[in-house]
Amino acid sequence: MDKMRLVIVGGVAAGASAAAKARRCNEEADIILYEMGEDISYATCGLPYYLSGIISKRNHLLVTSAKFFKQRFNVDVRTNHQVLSIDRNPQTVQVKNLTTGEIAEERYDRLILATGATPVIPPLPGVGLPFVFTLKTLEDTDRIFAHLENKKPKTAVVIGGGLIGMEAVENLVHRGTRVSVVEFMPQVLPFLDREMAEVVHHHLQQKNVDLYLSEKVTSIEDREGRGWVLTGGGRELPADLVILSAGIKPNTELAEDAGLRIGVSGGIAVDEFMQTNDPKILAAGDCVESLNLVTGKPALIPMGSAANKEGRAAGGNAMGRHIAVKGFTGTVIVKVFDLAVAKTGLSEKEAVSEGFVPLVTYVLSEDHAGYYPGAETVQIKTVADRGSGRLLGSQVIGKQGVDKRIDVMATAIYNGMALEDLLQLDLAYAPPYSSARDPVIVAGALGQNFYVGDWVPVTPAELHEKMERGDDFILLDTRTARELKKTGIIPGARHIHIDDLRKRATDLDPEKEIILYCAVGLRSYVGHRLLAMKGFENLRTLTGGIYSWIYPKEPYRG
Amino acid sequence: MDKMRLVIVGGVAAGASAAAKARRCNEEADIILYEMGEDISYATCGLPYYLSGIISKRNHLLVTSAKFFKQRFNVDVRTNHQVLSIDRNPQTVQVKNLTTGEIAEERYDRLILATGATPVIPPLPGVGLPFVFTLKTLEDTDRIFAHLENKKPKTAVVIGGGLIGMEAVENLVHRGTRVSVVEFMPQVLPFLDREMAEVVHHHLQQKNVDLYLSEKVTSIEDREGRGWVLTGGGRELPADLVILSAGIKPNTELAEDAGLRIGVSGGIAVDEFMQTNDPKILAAGDCVESLNLVTGKPALIPMGSAANKEGRAAGGNAMGRHIAVKGFTGTVIVKVFDLAVAKTGLSEKEAVSEGFVPLVTYVLSEDHAGYYPGAETVQIKTVADRGSGRLLGSQVIGKQGVDKRIDVMATAIYNGMALEDLLQLDLAYAPPYSSARDPVIVAGALGQNFYVGDWVPVTPAELHEKMERGDDFILLDTRTARELKKTGIIPGARHIHIDDLRKRATDLDPEKEIILYCAVGLRSYVGHRLLAMKGFENLRTLTGGIYSWIYPKEPYRG
Repeated sequence: MDKMRLVIVGGVAAGASAAAKARRCNEEADIILYEMGEDISYATCGLPYYLSGIISKRNHLLVTSAKFFKQRFNVDVRTNHQVLSIDRNPQTVQVKNLTTGEIAEERYDRLILATGATPVIPPLPGVGLPFVFTLKTLEDTDRIFAHLENKKPKTAVVIGGGLIGMEAVENLVHRGTRVSVVEFMPQVLPFLDREMAEVVHHHLQQKNVDLYLSEKVTSIEDREGRGWVLTGGGRELPADLVILSAGIKPNTELAEDAGLRIGVSGGIAVDEFMQTNDPKILAAGDCVESLNLVTGKPALIPMGSAANKEGRAAGGNAMGRHIAVKGFTGTVIVKVFDLAVAKTGLSEKEAVSEGFVPLVTYVLSEDHAGYYPGAETVQIKTVADRGSGRLLGSQVIGKQGVDKRIDVMATAIYNGMALEDLLQLDLAYAPPYSSARDPVIVAGALGQNFYVGDWVPVTPAELHEKMERGDDFILLDTRTARELKKTGIIPGARHIHIDDLRKRATDLDPEKEIILYCAVGLRSYVGHRLLAMKGFENLRTLTGGIYSWIYPKEPYRG
Repeated sequence: MDKMRLVIVGGVAAGASAAAKARRCNEEADIILYEMGEDISYATCGLPYYLSGIISKRNHLLVTSAKFFKQRFNVDVRTNHQVLSIDRNPQTVQVKNLTTGEIAEERYDRLILATGATPVIPPLPGVGLPFVFTLKTLEDTDRIFAHLENKKPKTAVVIGGGLIGMEAVENLVHRGTRVSVVEFMPQVLPFLDREMAEVVHHHLQQKNVDLYLSEKVTSIEDREGRGWVLTGGGRELPADLVILSAGIKPNTELAEDAGLRIGVSGGIAVDEFMQTNDPKILAAGDCVESLNLVTGKPALIPMGSAANKEGRAAGGNAMGRHIAVKGFTGTVIVKVFDLAVAKTGLSEKEAVSEGFVPLVTYVLSEDHAGYYPGAETVQIKTVADRGSGRLLGSQVIGKQGVDKRIDVMATAIYNGMALEDLLQLDLAYAPPYSSARDPVIVAGALGQNFYVGDWVPVTPAELHEKMERGDDFILLDTRTARELKKTGIIPGARHIHIDDLRKRATDLDPEKEIILYCAVGLRSYVGHRLLAMKGFENLRTLTGGIYSWIYPKEPYRG
């Protein structure tokens, strides 16, 4: 029998993982890896940091090389080769050598598509101008880097405020460039709920980033050697450099042309074994459709961590293994200057659009014991299914300790934990690392308090709505007079300090709905309980307190 | 009907939590809290850091006050009051006012015991000398602080290398004191496996701490105004200051004298609702026996985080609620100078003594992407039940990112995850926070590789044993010649670089057992697979590589 022949298309994250795993499962097979670019397996996620010099050397980005793959894994790596088409019967691919222009045919027994994703290029006048770039590949990065070095741009416009956009912004500012962000949505980082994104907006402004939200770019122009970005709102933004970060889309052309099934999300449809609808063809990485474990629905998960897992599974399974990738809770984290911004599971808006009736809570708490130096506020939003109590998602923002909390939440959601079950977790506690009540534990306690009827939260958004509707209710601020001076009071609120509430409860009309708030929600919860036991029946508490209301402008210091 | 009357004995962590929660559940009850000391609810876990000045002000340690508790929660706090005895029928306690000496009787409807724990004082000659201290209460801390300020001790001996001992060491060194640790066990931090503790030993030595292991203190002496600690090994250690940190024991006298059931662990026996065997009496905090969720057996969990949860439950349940504390996975973390040292679940030795046949793996990996500045090695040991694959425990040591990984492990263990399921977690990835393959994901992959038969680990301890027994096997180092020069080779090992193994496999005797190793285990795993597919049947890989063998002396830099 002939040797088994595995062809892999694409050699960055998923493709390289697949090749290495395939070899570990089959020493005899011929493994051929085609990559269109110059390099394989480079650090895509590190590219923005090379622009600023935070990653100081280009070769730090080169995780591995074709030579290494040959030596270590006996993989025949062919860079600068583009696979043009797949002929599923007979099992061949047509490949173009981009250096020589030569086209050849290659037979496969198994084929793995790891074709990745491509930046979406908005159809704008001027996108082809020489100072306009995408930031996805090493080649892109080299081009931007050369432009930065040669032209010393003073101004830059980043079009699109997603993950790559935010990383581009930080690294350009780090270089001393004046950066504007133009985003057609009313917020950056669309995976976040709006009010959480506001925290990011404020932080960007603090860093002197000019933020233009709900603003569409209409054209990019070169006027006498200087670049400008023009917007629908009539703005003309100076732009010696433009980064297009308007999202990415899976590269599915090869698969589509070969008649493979494409999923509703736009990625190549695969099962949990990374198998396409052709038993000889697998796919992995940014080009595939994954499963969102929270919704049970298809989703695109274009993350390096996912690509590695999927590539490993595809490589093994091409050699007859049965390695499952069960799906993703949709965890995301991004550094935006001093903030870590993270999410797992569903946002509130996503939960609603999935048909859930969400229970939303906010915790603002310190990342470690407040009496130990260096504590910083962590803001945690949790979204649960109000009916069942199941934790659906969490968003965490802060200067430190964010990645820890989001990973605990991701692990909890993976395991189907209820919000109140978080209270049972035995999280590591010592003053430099956490508090005796970790913010995650507090989130669990809030859940438990709700489900036993001790507490009913109202979110800032709901409070806004009630105020706009002109609902008749008492808004009660339970903080100290000094705190009121510092932050102001929410318009229309009455003030009774929590320690006076016991004797002044009779001042309040028990027939009316009362919404309590304090700084972050602890004292108002105490007041909520007090009033409840005094016979008040229609009580709610502003979850996250006034700092969830005004947080973006005045981050809470506990 | 008379007002309900709740008496709480002890007002630090559990007692204060209980009082506050009880009030939130019952506005009308009389709540009386007795505390023997001057203060309630101070930051026990912060005390060592006050000694060094890392926590710069004493009042930072005072989380709350009697006055606050009266105002906020209408709790009648009586400090300097000692509860002498409980008379369960009629339901009364006898209380001594430590200021006046007066003894009174107080009736209760419900009683919560939050009596805490007390340092074990070893029965040594000289423990009563004025320069010998325990470090458990604020009063202890004040006494040590005064001694430090007044006597300016140049030398200190810490007797006992547990959590408090390690924190005392760091903070005394921080002040410029020369510190010796005397520990009668062969390791510090007994919850760790021995080889993980070795990492801590080496770090202590780097910080100029004199470490005397397997050494018993025989006496403490005052010789002409200078303190000395004498050991069974004949050492005489200068000791201007001695900290006794030989462990703590639950304060159960009151409960015992009242005929309440004491558990096998020595703590007051309670159910998951913190109920003792007397339906009118609950208990919480360091004085109770908790449940270890991994073994299903009773355990002492003297942690502030546990005390807070248990106190909250006891306070609510005293008022008729049904708040469960399901148990603990036994999570511990401690800062030892630059290292964070953490554990959750069972150590290998604990797993063995519980009758498990453990599968042990080590991961040495960077806490975030190596190409992003500031990455540090994280060392993760996992212990799984070999038969079922269930994750039993994990130990994590490193300079950063340790608390995150241990909390993920604690959450995984709480949920009964298998080691290989860790691979499915969708952990947050961006270069400043993690790697595309987070160390926890790598641990999961090792588990999967084992269970599909791709890889069989041998631990450093097992390798030592095999070498001592004189087993006949080939030990194969697959690193580069340059690496060998740097760290040396394990005695008796042969060297074939991984990239030469494909053609040099025929040099090896396929009849013999072969144990491969490299730096941390990745290349040896690749070699393992290669040889397996070439027909070698008796293969194992040193998990964690040479750095798990020599790690304490030469931490791995990836």
